[in-house]
Amino acid sequence: MRFGSDNMAPAHPRIMDALARANEGYARAYGGDEITARVEELFGRIFERDVAVFLVGTGGAANALALSALTPPWGMILAHEASHVQMDECGGVELATGGAKILPVAGGDGKLTPAAVLAALSGFPERPPHGTPATALSLTQASELGTVYAPAELHALSELAHARGLAVHLDGARFANAVAALGVSPADLSWRAGVDAMSFGGTKNGCIMAEAVVFFDQSKAEHFAFRRKRAGHLFSKSRYLAAQFEAYFDGGLWLDLAGRANGMAKRLADGITALDGARLWHPQQANEVFASLPPGAEERLRAAGAEFYPWITPGDPAGGRMIRLVCSWATTTEDVDAFLAIAGRR
Amino acid sequence: MRFGSDNMAPAHPRIMDALARANEGYARAYGGDEITARVEELFGRIFERDVAVFLVGTGGAANALALSALTPPWGMILAHEASHVQMDECGGVELATGGAKILPVAGGDGKLTPAAVLAALSGFPERPPHGTPATALSLTQASELGTVYAPAELHALSELAHARGLAVHLDGARFANAVAALGVSPADLSWRAGVDAMSFGGTKNGCIMAEAVVFFDQSKAEHFAFRRKRAGHLFSKSRYLAAQFEAYFDGGLWLDLAGRANGMAKRLADGITALDGARLWHPQQANEVFASLPPGAEERLRAAGAEFYPWITPGDPAGGRMIRLVCSWATTTEDVDAFLAIAGRR
Amino acid sequence: MRFGSDNMAPAHPRIMDALARANEGYARAYGGDEITARVEELFGRIFERDVAVFLVGTGGAANALALSALTPPWGMILAHEASHVQMDECGGVELATGGAKILPVAGGDGKLTPAAVLAALSGFPERPPHGTPATALSLTQASELGTVYAPAELHALSELAHARGLAVHLDGARFANAVAALGVSPADLSWRAGVDAMSFGGTKNGCIMAEAVVFFDQSKAEHFAFRRKRAGHLFSKSRYLAAQFEAYFDGGLWLDLAGRANGMAKRLADGITALDGARLWHPQQANEVFASLPPGAEERLRAAGAEFYPWITPGDPAGGRMIRLVCSWATTTEDVDAFLAIAGRR
Amino acid sequence: MRFGSDNMAPAHPRIMDALARANEGYARAYGGDEITARVEELFGRIFERDVAVFLVGTGGAANALALSALTPPWGMILAHEASHVQMDECGGVELATGGAKILPVAGGDGKLTPAAVLAALSGFPERPPHGTPATALSLTQASELGTVYAPAELHALSELAHARGLAVHLDGARFANAVAALGVSPADLSWRAGVDAMSFGGTKNGCIMAEAVVFFDQSKAEHFAFRRKRAGHLFSKSRYLAAQFEAYFDGGLWLDLAGRANGMAKRLADGITALDGARLWHPQQANEVFASLPPGAEERLRAAGAEFYPWITPGDPAGGRMIRLVCSWATTTEDVDAFLAIAGRR
Repeated sequence: MRFGSDNMAPAHPRIMDALARANEGYARAYGGDEITARVEELFGRIFERDVAVFLVGTGGAANALALSALTPPWGMILAHEASHVQMDECGGVELATGGAKILPVAGGDGKLTPAAVLAALSGFPERPPHGTPATALSLTQASELGTVYAPAELHALSELAHARGLAVHLDGARFANAVAALGVSPADLSWRAGVDAMSFGGTKNGCIMAEAVVFFDQSKAEHFAFRRKRAGHLFSKSRYLAAQFEAYFDGGLWLDLAGRANGMAKRLADGITALDGARLWHPQQANEVFASLPPGAEERLRAAGAEFYPWITPGDPAGGRMIRLVCSWATTTEDVDAFLAIAGRR
Repeated sequence: MRFGSDNMAPAHPRIMDALARANEGYARAYGGDEITARVEELFGRIFERDVAVFLVGTGGAANALALSALTPPWGMILAHEASHVQMDECGGVELATGGAKILPVAGGDGKLTPAAVLAALSGFPERPPHGTPATALSLTQASELGTVYAPAELHALSELAHARGLAVHLDGARFANAVAALGVSPADLSWRAGVDAMSFGGTKNGCIMAEAVVFFDQSKAEHFAFRRKRAGHLFSKSRYLAAQFEAYFDGGLWLDLAGRANGMAKRLADGITALDGARLWHPQQANEVFASLPPGAEERLRAAGAEFYPWITPGDPAGGRMIRLVCSWATTTEDVDAFLAIAGRR
Repeated sequence: MRFGSDNMAPAHPRIMDALARANEGYARAYGGDEITARVEELFGRIFERDVAVFLVGTGGAANALALSALTPPWGMILAHEASHVQMDECGGVELATGGAKILPVAGGDGKLTPAAVLAALSGFPERPPHGTPATALSLTQASELGTVYAPAELHALSELAHARGLAVHLDGARFANAVAALGVSPADLSWRAGVDAMSFGGTKNGCIMAEAVVFFDQSKAEHFAFRRKRAGHLFSKSRYLAAQFEAYFDGGLWLDLAGRANGMAKRLADGITALDGARLWHPQQANEVFASLPPGAEERLRAAGAEFYPWITPGDPAGGRMIRLVCSWATTTEDVDAFLAIAGRR
Repeated sequence: MRFGSDNMAPAHPRIMDALARANEGYARAYGGDEITARVEELFGRIFERDVAVFLVGTGGAANALALSALTPPWGMILAHEASHVQMDECGGVELATGGAKILPVAGGDGKLTPAAVLAALSGFPERPPHGTPATALSLTQASELGTVYAPAELHALSELAHARGLAVHLDGARFANAVAALGVSPADLSWRAGVDAMSFGGTKNGCIMAEAVVFFDQSKAEHFAFRRKRAGHLFSKSRYLAAQFEAYFDGGLWLDLAGRANGMAKRLADGITALDGARLWHPQQANEVFASLPPGAEERLRAAGAEFYPWITPGDPAGGRMIRLVCSWATTTEDVDAFLAIAGRR
């Protein structure tokens, strides 16, 4: 009953096997190795087009560095007020960009709408050089509140962004969960929907540490090798990052794992919905459930060793009574059912 | 009828005379001169306590540098969503602080309330090291929308801020107008109300370029000389900045000028209120009037040479129909009356 | 006998008169005024070509901001090890550029040579993305040690720089002194010799505070308005900066003043050279003299009220015994002769 | 014959086994897991005192972040002109510190001496706030040119640094090699010799990616958790970094591996020294050899598949003819002997 975070799950055995296999003999350092080269190609196949790929160590680094390539230091990034870049990276975007501003925008269920973005832009009119010009829009897929953007939603947001001169970034720390949830292609959920660059996460979904920045607009990647290097995210033994991605994509493992996590979250959400006195605060669409439980349930669950955290965000609809339950590839039916049984006990 | 900005007004003749007098013989460079020394003392007398004072060239620099001394690079500054630091300095605070985050907070009439600050803090809970810790509160006096905080209002905000570990900064680009409007002492509107450091403006109120950062909590000023220098705001011929402040304070000139500007704004606001089809959008309390005029009035006024700008801010109550009218020490009764006559013509 | 710094001199009366004249009526803020517009044109005439001009408050700001437009944050600027950008701006360049590196290069008499630049580049080979790529060369004219680059010297350095992909910046805090010393046109000492952008100083040579960044390669100026604004160097009452430059250029005042300062420095250098037990450490070519005096002379001079400072730089040839004597437009023959008389007394 | 870099070697099997063992069940994220806790204690035992330890992903990050805790943005770090922080991190220190300056100092065999540090400080006198104050000294152990500092050498440098108010940082990317080479305790080569904080490397010596920042002066670590987080170096699945260190220290594996690499380097250096027409350019003291080979040898070796790189640094004594040969834990006697045989062939 470990629902605290998908970061608490172990790596999938096939990821570990790949690491072991990668540990053979010598390999060029700093990404010059063959596995890294293969993985860069693999990303192209996954996304059905040429892309520029840069492996990094963490999702925070991926977001901060990707955005630093999309906005000048005097620019402004619009992002959901509950997004990871705004609330969970301790100013990583501000550091990497050299001081760009994040303008937090509200939106139901962790998602932005064109209307909300337009209103934010209208309230912050361009008056160069006084105001920071809006230069990027960052979207999170799956969102910080467990929901997903449909391709049409992404497309509408990208269209608005591009019309106003903003580049579009996707925080895909849980991109696999979104792809699995929607059953559409990675391309449809990214560049075909107008995304210029994205953070592509593997860590939460079965890797040990494997994140990447993927540029669809490759002109934006021109200086990225310098940016990654000076941030300390060019790994000398790149093969060990790359090997994880190779296994991750092999045979669609990434979508299997994400689908499994999503399924467990659905089972959990359905069970909670059925409980008297419980409710969901946001629709369960990926691998996270945001809920409040019947009176006394949290205490019973903690006493039984269940792990989960309260979740507080700007515009919290639950007034502080919401918890977050995260499923991972390693979550089992038994975990979920045990949790529900205790939660529903009288 | 030049109501575009108090920055468009000339300097007061006594300021110019002081500049001419300062131009005698040699003077130590970089603030080592006698006028600068006298002015540093003068600030102490104005504020009825020891202060650390640093002259700088612009209000934007004063704000950015003051805040850089109050927050670490990974910190977060709460400020009104329509404040100058958020909307008008092109990321100056982000540059000077090394990437601190500004969390914009809404509030009626350009002012923050303890409830709004508390709500913002509650939605962004401290989870070190994930979230940027809230480290400073920046208030604007007079506010960006022409209103003023009473001492008790400032005090309540400071108390909350200090209780949560936030330092309190005051953007006093129009501090003189606030002091003149409220008729209380500078001390009552600053450190006695809990302000730790402030930006003290002279430029808009009769100087040519004279701004200062004033630290009431002098421990915060420890490294400020380095910060000012590397930002290029240590002026080699400091005497010409200092001389302006000496004349500004002499005989209470600063409050006379501010009072005159406030009075003109009141005359303007009263006149507009009396017009059929016109209205104020924010109470006139200092030297600015935010209004909409009767149909056709804007066109007639512009045709007659009047100068003023539309004013758009986040949470704009007027839906884009608001104009800003700024009075300065140089605004005359004739200006105001001519404006009102044209505005009210049928 | 105030030889401490040209920053200690007063402003020239014609500069003060221009300030007074500029103080008439209203003027557009933030550089939208007529005087600023005229001055931008004036710079074009002075340099015999279209230029992009941005007024700022200090020479430190001019250098830092100019370089920030010429190098990315991951770039490297080669500069003389005794240059102002390296030794006297408290990291201003590093702040404004977002962390570019300055590679200090040694060179006799405060000047760089192509050989020294080439050796520095050779020792720091390009190995992207490991090393910071060399992106700019900053030269000081007149140099920090009172010497000047002849046009051919500048040209040779620029040619090397451009061949290696480096932009060329000129720190012209004392550009007037160099132009007056060499008797060549401003164009010959700047863009015709390969300079891409320069800091153009007026403060040390008779203004109260008047500095500018001038771009000859205007493509580099594309985002400069944002850079200046966020550094707090867009002055709201720009007319008072501009008015100084208008008077500065009027009738060649700038070169008259610089020539006068240079002449006084020559008189001083000649006199010192003639003293038994004294010597110059660097050739006097502009308005500064670097010397050591006969035993006992410094004490006698100080006792008589003379002002000057010891001068220590990397690679100091004098082992700490060198003093710097700076002449300004306000230095008089009497000052110089009195100094020499006391220095030479037995 | 892969002598290109110790980064090209695989990880040691015991490191890989530890990774596999760490992959059991759930573990708290972001360093809250048990392995990370154990490793933090282990560092204390290794260094015979309480330390504050922070795991990061790369050596570049360790250096940049460690130095950011030791110097303010307006400070200056003295480092060898050929050091990694100066030449190989693409401005990482400048980014992480918010713009601190690195003052490169020359020194024979990649090492600094107190005399050289003193001379550098003397040429850059403190003139607050004009010059950037010297705030840190960064030393590399083993050095970038394969040499090591004896404890007394470190001690003399630290003493000088502390006397001048500089904190002392040690870049220990190859610290294991230095400890193994000198046969003294880690404590004697760090805090007992005056080091305040160090970068402790595991990657080059048998790990896949395992680096740490170790604070001996724990007061300097106060805000480090924020710094690491915003740089994207707080790994969500920290257990996989920690597990490597646990195995690395277990049974002294780290020193065994380093000793093996050093021994291979000695064998290589001895062999090269014996070759007619070859020479070492720096004493071989750790796991690197800097040499030039007999005419024709490089070509023969490359043709036979040997891997190595030319090595160019500032002050290069070899005029561009020097190559670097790096041994790792995985280098074999056969590798070395084959290399020497080909190099020595006529």
